[in-house]
Amino acid sequence: MAGSLDDLPPRAALVEIARDFHARGWMAGTAGNLSAREDENHFWITASGWPKGRLDELDFLLVRVKDGEIVEHVRPENKPSAETAIHRTLYTLFPSARACLHGHMVEAVMAADRAKKGAKGLRLAPIEMLKGFDIWQQNPKVDLPLFENHLDVAKIAKAIGLRFRKSGPAVTALMVRSHGPTVWGASLQEAYNRFEILEFILRYQANSRR
Amino acid sequence: MAGSLDDLPPRAALVEIARDFHARGWMAGTAGNLSAREDENHFWITASGWPKGRLDELDFLLVRVKDGEIVEHVRPENKPSAETAIHRTLYTLFPSARACLHGHMVEAVMAADRAKKGAKGLRLAPIEMLKGFDIWQQNPKVDLPLFENHLDVAKIAKAIGLRFRKSGPAVTALMVRSHGPTVWGASLQEAYNRFEILEFILRYQANSRR
Amino acid sequence: MAGSLDDLPPRAALVEIARDFHARGWMAGTAGNLSAREDENHFWITASGWPKGRLDELDFLLVRVKDGEIVEHVRPENKPSAETAIHRTLYTLFPSARACLHGHMVEAVMAADRAKKGAKGLRLAPIEMLKGFDIWQQNPKVDLPLFENHLDVAKIAKAIGLRFRKSGPAVTALMVRSHGPTVWGASLQEAYNRFEILEFILRYQANSRR
Amino acid sequence: MAGSLDDLPPRAALVEIARDFHARGWMAGTAGNLSAREDENHFWITASGWPKGRLDELDFLLVRVKDGEIVEHVRPENKPSAETAIHRTLYTLFPSARACLHGHMVEAVMAADRAKKGAKGLRLAPIEMLKGFDIWQQNPKVDLPLFENHLDVAKIAKAIGLRFRKSGPAVTALMVRSHGPTVWGASLQEAYNRFEILEFILRYQANSRR
Repeated sequence: MAGSLDDLPPRAALVEIARDFHARGWMAGTAGNLSAREDENHFWITASGWPKGRLDELDFLLVRVKDGEIVEHVRPENKPSAETAIHRTLYTLFPSARACLHGHMVEAVMAADRAKKGAKGLRLAPIEMLKGFDIWQQNPKVDLPLFENHLDVAKIAKAIGLRFRKSGPAVTALMVRSHGPTVWGASLQEAYNRFEILEFILRYQANSRR
Repeated sequence: MAGSLDDLPPRAALVEIARDFHARGWMAGTAGNLSAREDENHFWITASGWPKGRLDELDFLLVRVKDGEIVEHVRPENKPSAETAIHRTLYTLFPSARACLHGHMVEAVMAADRAKKGAKGLRLAPIEMLKGFDIWQQNPKVDLPLFENHLDVAKIAKAIGLRFRKSGPAVTALMVRSHGPTVWGASLQEAYNRFEILEFILRYQANSRR
Repeated sequence: MAGSLDDLPPRAALVEIARDFHARGWMAGTAGNLSAREDENHFWITASGWPKGRLDELDFLLVRVKDGEIVEHVRPENKPSAETAIHRTLYTLFPSARACLHGHMVEAVMAADRAKKGAKGLRLAPIEMLKGFDIWQQNPKVDLPLFENHLDVAKIAKAIGLRFRKSGPAVTALMVRSHGPTVWGASLQEAYNRFEILEFILRYQANSRR
Repeated sequence: MAGSLDDLPPRAALVEIARDFHARGWMAGTAGNLSAREDENHFWITASGWPKGRLDELDFLLVRVKDGEIVEHVRPENKPSAETAIHRTLYTLFPSARACLHGHMVEAVMAADRAKKGAKGLRLAPIEMLKGFDIWQQNPKVDLPLFENHLDVAKIAKAIGLRFRKSGPAVTALMVRSHGPTVWGASLQEAYNRFEILEFILRYQANSRR
């Protein structure tokens, strides 16, 4: 098999993704956060407030899935992002998720703006690229789950938990309006691939005249 | 003559193109596939499912043009993409084709969306760049062949074969709607150059107000 | 803490930012200028007229905040940009500002074009990214200060001084119409982060249909 | 003075510019051509048909300004581009021109499309960036000369010569419709800087709603 992000230790892979996403403009300033499971019960997540193009492997916290406790700060000054709650919700709900990637893209925000006020999903264009989410249908009708943005991130995490406990999403991704997407996958490489794929689809939807 | 992709062994050249196209966003996730003839009767094609920015020279299969049989897997786990059928069709129809490149671009999909429903071609804008397809006319009227997308890729390959056996296209390229272009050339470098040229023209057409 | 531009000597950091911004198209030709405090009373600023992708650490002048006198040319042929007056005004007004970055972006100009004639501010879209300016409100109503462009840059600097002495801006940034933004920060890294953030927000506003 | 393209031998500088422009999508396929004076009576120009991202210093021809004779092929297979005639016209008309750069950009073509049919100039937006062409006016009214595209490039060169012999342009640049800009400068670095500046202005005009 080809070279893969999964050949790297989780934090080394996340550092590489952070540089890549920053260079593409998907983690402007210190925006976004990336995580990967260390084992069934813990995940590494990027510390808050550092520029994502300059991370190293010490800029992470180890978080317990069960209760969100920080098991390891690595550097004493590392602080968790409020959005850690969203990652924890996803790892709790989806035992097969090994990595969660959250970034900010202008065109993702623009695509979500086209959904009606209050809509709980954004219909994804039935283009070939959607197969990257393992959607194998001729004219798929698949919605990207949409959530409202709140200043209090715990509210977003709670809304995600409530909705997904009732029924899981058709894709391993969600979008918070005026904010950005989070994509997860059964491996680091899958999460990375699907982040690229969602970006492609949303860029299309932001610009399409259809 | 200048440095050229044709100075490299075919698989090394395809690895270089895959990294290049991935970095430009033309092979998001694991999308797209690239091939080059090894000899008159066989071609190398990228294995399915691997991230295209991380390929190496072992991530290929050797396919027989005549019947599509896989002559060599290189790595036992390498699987052919369903789109191998499209490459095989093109090598069968066009003995001078030495390489076929298939990628996905947002703006190519947008440009094709502007063609009428059912249209079998997309009129290419008569801009200077079209000369890169060896079109030497003052106001050329040249169509990019358009094909409908099908979940069953064999249907796309069959439609291509049927149409091109009747009459060849004006350019060494085709577009599958909601999907992406395939470009071929008499050499790896020519296919690469023309892929860039088609991308330029379709990007213009996607954004033009004309 | 993660690697940071603040780990570098000021001029080395500015050289790195200049290459980065030039590569992204934010300092086309010789456009833009970057500065950082050497100490409370002096700042280093890029010399005028040199291509910003090719600067080295000798392409700077040391300027006294108090009166704008050039204390050191480094190279005798280094000339100050007329826009030095804007940087000096900002360092005078904001003692905590450690760095000022001024670039030119097509989409920043487009976003400012959407403000009414004579408007003194551009309402920034209340998207999540705005938190990067330390705006922690649910639906923030924050304006980016807008200034008219003048051939005589001293006039722009004067207008900035007059307005900000009355009341400081809600964000550590300003925009000169048909020209470009200037962003400052309490550190080089903060100024860099916020420049990226402002670019993101203005790119959104330039393209949004809202 | 900062590092400059003028510190390099002319062909080395052109190779560097070709790679840069190709990477930015301004020389797709084998499109575009670049030249620089060797001395008052001769200029080096890129050979035709080679991919511009892969040039080396042997992929040039030495042309005599006076009569267009090729004084040196460097490699026997190097062929002059038909557009050599345009470069020769400009070196003949403007003795101070040391370099001429011609590329193709989607947004330059789009900007020119907005000019009326038959218009001989495209009014450039009076944005700050225009100062890069040494235009120092408050609300400059400056036109980029526009020429019709012809299959026979000699016709374009002739039209340029006829018009500019009557009156020189306000900027050291011209645009051929549906084709691309050519920018010249008193040095390699100036031509490069102004090419970037023109690209910025035309990208603005292609996208502006004004």
